[in-house]
Amino acid sequence: MTVLAGGVGGAKLAHGASRVTDRVTVVVNTADDARIHGLWVSPDLDTVMYTLAGIANPTTGWGIAGETYTTLEALRRLGADTWFMLGDQDLATHLARTARLADGASLSQVTAELATALGVTARLLPATDDPLATMVDTPAGRLDFQDYFVRRKHQDDVLGVHLDGVDDARPAPGVLPALTGADVVLLAPSNPIVSVGPVLAVPGVREALRTSPARRVGVSPLIGGRAVKGPAAQMLAGLGHEVSALGVARLYVDVLDVWCIDTVDAHLAPAITDLGLTVHVTDTMMRTDHDRERLATELVDVAGR
Amino acid sequence: MTVLAGGVGGAKLAHGASRVTDRVTVVVNTADDARIHGLWVSPDLDTVMYTLAGIANPTTGWGIAGETYTTLEALRRLGADTWFMLGDQDLATHLARTARLADGASLSQVTAELATALGVTARLLPATDDPLATMVDTPAGRLDFQDYFVRRKHQDDVLGVHLDGVDDARPAPGVLPALTGADVVLLAPSNPIVSVGPVLAVPGVREALRTSPARRVGVSPLIGGRAVKGPAAQMLAGLGHEVSALGVARLYVDVLDVWCIDTVDAHLAPAITDLGLTVHVTDTMMRTDHDRERLATELVDVAGR
Repeated sequence: MTVLAGGVGGAKLAHGASRVTDRVTVVVNTADDARIHGLWVSPDLDTVMYTLAGIANPTTGWGIAGETYTTLEALRRLGADTWFMLGDQDLATHLARTARLADGASLSQVTAELATALGVTARLLPATDDPLATMVDTPAGRLDFQDYFVRRKHQDDVLGVHLDGVDDARPAPGVLPALTGADVVLLAPSNPIVSVGPVLAVPGVREALRTSPARRVGVSPLIGGRAVKGPAAQMLAGLGHEVSALGVARLYVDVLDVWCIDTVDAHLAPAITDLGLTVHVTDTMMRTDHDRERLATELVDVAGR
Repeated sequence: MTVLAGGVGGAKLAHGASRVTDRVTVVVNTADDARIHGLWVSPDLDTVMYTLAGIANPTTGWGIAGETYTTLEALRRLGADTWFMLGDQDLATHLARTARLADGASLSQVTAELATALGVTARLLPATDDPLATMVDTPAGRLDFQDYFVRRKHQDDVLGVHLDGVDDARPAPGVLPALTGADVVLLAPSNPIVSVGPVLAVPGVREALRTSPARRVGVSPLIGGRAVKGPAAQMLAGLGHEVSALGVARLYVDVLDVWCIDTVDAHLAPAITDLGLTVHVTDTMMRTDHDRERLATELVDVAGR
């Protein structure tokens, strides 16, 4: 089974999937990676990794449980910008990653090493080892993703989203086989514009998924027209998409067989069926570990039908 | 007043000097700087900086008081080498330094910024902004200084000391004027081979000190033939020098007016006088802040005679 994932929503579904089968590959967005204090930070990879390792902060969804911020406080004292929260344990991940990348290792290699060290048995793949950066066009100008998302708290209207480097990005080793060779591919309920979008935008990925013999099942990140977390709704609106589980389905219609929506959105099922997708209606909110496993089980089940 | 300093001994004397006058420049050894987890670590600069900022760990002499090691523990969990102790607060210094150097700032600039942020009023100058690295020849081969010093706990016999980059190193801005324009230059009781030695070895520095009109006063790092801290005695022995306050005086005879030795070494005074140096005998052990200030006051006093 392969899961295409962004951050928190993707991590939760990947975690559920890893409890259903031990042969899970998670292809993770890297377009919101950033250089913070000179370190290579991969927020989505880390969120998925920490979640699968069982050390994620259950309150925030990102970061490590019981995290402290001693270094960040000291950086603040030194006059550094400290709007990007980096915990002391989390910092070790970024230090190790940055040092290994500087040694010439690829992001895939480093990701595999880190995940193994943390006891993650699922295979974690960055969508690409090449530079890829989501830029957000706003009334304040074009912003780096983390500038828009974290520093400015995704308050700016989104006029456009641009992927720097996308033309030259290649799928990381293993990504295309994970899409064409899987029995089931799940599209996690992550932001379709800035999480799943950049994964699909890596040249070759969307085509591989479109033509894959795998059963392809996506989960709507919108429930009742709202994102569980993050700016997906505002982004979709800003880019002229319908802000609903139907609107998101339209973005994926060429790469999916089944679209899973929440029970509160059951009224959208006929219109989604009209798109040519099989609709699965269930409780998609993943509050507990049990929810994650139950949803993943259902998705595998519906994929098999 | 200018102080030439290495790590802990240099930091203590610089601290004493800064309590005697508010116009102190400290020229600090950078040849034991190292890349640790990809970060630029400047142990001697940081020891002096933390000491002058009043945040040094009083037990170790290096590092920050009340330090925690959360990131280092997490790095260990990730399989990284963690023999170099980096505290969580200390890490912020290295992160900020490394990021600013990557931005193109010089080590002098970064050092001034960090020291200012920590409220240090004395001027801290790296001996050079250029790459300079102490390499230690041992029966186990040529070792990076921190490999020899920290990882292998300076247990190897020292067959030779080599300064990589010394031919191309230039004194950092302000270093030569600090030597030629000062009323008093103090050579701190730091390791003569790997702390004060590299400072003097930067082309132009030794000559500037030799010809400076300043009164030049050095303090022996050896008391009763032993170093207060670190491997100075073994190194001197390994390199064929006499392991005593007299042996160290011989290394500095061209750049000093006064050599300050401990009372336990008073019997060496005639031989040191024969070298052409004025001898000052006192209690040179700096246990307390008061000791530091008292010694610095005495050195200024004897310089003025």
